[in-house]
Amino acid sequence: MKPPFKRLTLIGIGLIGSSIALAARRKELAEEIVISTRSEATLDRARELGLGDRYYLDAAEAAEGADLVILCVPVGACGPVAKWIAPCLAPGAIVSDVGSVKEAVVRSMSPHIPQGVHFVPAHPIAGTEHSGPDAGFAELFENRWCLITPVEGSDADAIARLAAFWTALGSNVEEMDPVRHDRVLAITSHLPHLIAYNLVGTAHDLETVTQSEVIKFSAGGFRDSTRLAASDPTMWRDVFLNNKDAVLEMLGRFSEELAALQRAVRWGDGEALYKAFERTRYIRRNIIEAGQETPAPDFGRHVKEPGE
Amino acid sequence: MKPPFKRLTLIGIGLIGSSIALAARRKELAEEIVISTRSEATLDRARELGLGDRYYLDAAEAAEGADLVILCVPVGACGPVAKWIAPCLAPGAIVSDVGSVKEAVVRSMSPHIPQGVHFVPAHPIAGTEHSGPDAGFAELFENRWCLITPVEGSDADAIARLAAFWTALGSNVEEMDPVRHDRVLAITSHLPHLIAYNLVGTAHDLETVTQSEVIKFSAGGFRDSTRLAASDPTMWRDVFLNNKDAVLEMLGRFSEELAALQRAVRWGDGEALYKAFERTRYIRRNIIEAGQETPAPDFGRHVKEPGE
Repeated sequence: MKPPFKRLTLIGIGLIGSSIALAARRKELAEEIVISTRSEATLDRARELGLGDRYYLDAAEAAEGADLVILCVPVGACGPVAKWIAPCLAPGAIVSDVGSVKEAVVRSMSPHIPQGVHFVPAHPIAGTEHSGPDAGFAELFENRWCLITPVEGSDADAIARLAAFWTALGSNVEEMDPVRHDRVLAITSHLPHLIAYNLVGTAHDLETVTQSEVIKFSAGGFRDSTRLAASDPTMWRDVFLNNKDAVLEMLGRFSEELAALQRAVRWGDGEALYKAFERTRYIRRNIIEAGQETPAPDFGRHVKEPGE
Repeated sequence: MKPPFKRLTLIGIGLIGSSIALAARRKELAEEIVISTRSEATLDRARELGLGDRYYLDAAEAAEGADLVILCVPVGACGPVAKWIAPCLAPGAIVSDVGSVKEAVVRSMSPHIPQGVHFVPAHPIAGTEHSGPDAGFAELFENRWCLITPVEGSDADAIARLAAFWTALGSNVEEMDPVRHDRVLAITSHLPHLIAYNLVGTAHDLETVTQSEVIKFSAGGFRDSTRLAASDPTMWRDVFLNNKDAVLEMLGRFSEELAALQRAVRWGDGEALYKAFERTRYIRRNIIEAGQETPAPDFGRHVKEPGE
């Protein structure tokens, strides 16, 4: 069977870009994969890893003649990249992205998309704490959701073709309004990352407990947070700069609830604490039943034995 | 070789108690394992699982004649149980516990320990989000730290025997002052749990994002927190009731730092956000190097495929 796309151009080749490259190759979704990234070292590495067929530092050159262009860059770079590649986009091409924020990306990219080119924003909800072209793997999107957030006037056929692309990568695809997307992701992804960064940062700055104690005794629960807090700082800076309102709304709620728990701790209100701790269990159970989490205790994580 | 203890009595047979039972049996650390718990159903289940040799609802009867008694109950129950078993403790016996809080446990148990009985508090830093006698497994303590927090007048020989017991279970043993222990654990364990409970609770209560959306799209980072927030509510209520000062101190720092991040989000201070997100990566690297965490991306978790 002929691949559904002739030329897939990936602009940005970090964890998500390289995983798309590997998965698209394996599933034969494009006749040719073209890769562009602004760092020469990263482009060289992508070439060494054989992630694509052609490699460009110039995003516009890379986008030329492609029928699917996916921006895999931090959300703050989406607008400038769209502006850069716009003159080279072929009529009928689909332009998409993978950003964790959709309203701001739509706002910054839309004005640059030429007449006759189809802009279909998307967000695969998948990732690990690692970044860069070496971090990618073809299975990253399997059984993960990919949200497509069409904009006014998005072409139905282009949406269907992009949805089929993500389905072929293993994802479950769903359409969502960009504003709703940003609100949902603020609580399911952005706030958890902010909290994790803050928890690890707080531990980092303590005077009364040393960093070596924090590291040594981290298995009590702290180490879980260090995973999210090891994520790419540029990507996450851009998320918070571009989803301000929804993040501040969720953060406000979080702080309000935390103040109530703090009060319960201070006044020794065991009943309030028990009630707060008891109702959260079933959410995990539901996530496991939805196939979005492993049921194995402790994530089934295998911890290195000394000398292993 | 003769087992180092004649009779090991475990009072409380949840995740920690049952794991001690299984590991002590496997390593042949006691000639006889005696189990007591106040719930008849749990005691029956422990018997079905074959966790011990004898089973009692009455903790005092279970403690009689034991040379090692370990309280594996929520920290709030340690004082009352110590009082209960005190008249039955054999001279020369070692009494220990596994509580996540040490100063309060020392304060509540010490007055009840009879002359000639050795009280040596301890805390194995190990666990999963599961609880009850079915959750235990013999490998739980392997390569995990166990902190022993001797009290004034603790017998050196008793400390050494308990340390050898935990070493035989696979733990790395270290001594620490109870007050310092509580401060270290406040940041490495107690605060992370409080934050996780609060994050999941906040998501639970939102009106603007539905619970089914939270569950569906949890892989963006939220699901990590649900693991800690699925932990035993009684155990954690007691931790917060009994380590108030240290938890409030760490919580104060956390909230202060969070307010600074919130301000950076509100004012679009990308530099401050980047700086905050950039310095936390190496802490995870150090935890991995210390053998306390898996280096595999995403904890190496294996997520259930639909229909698997």
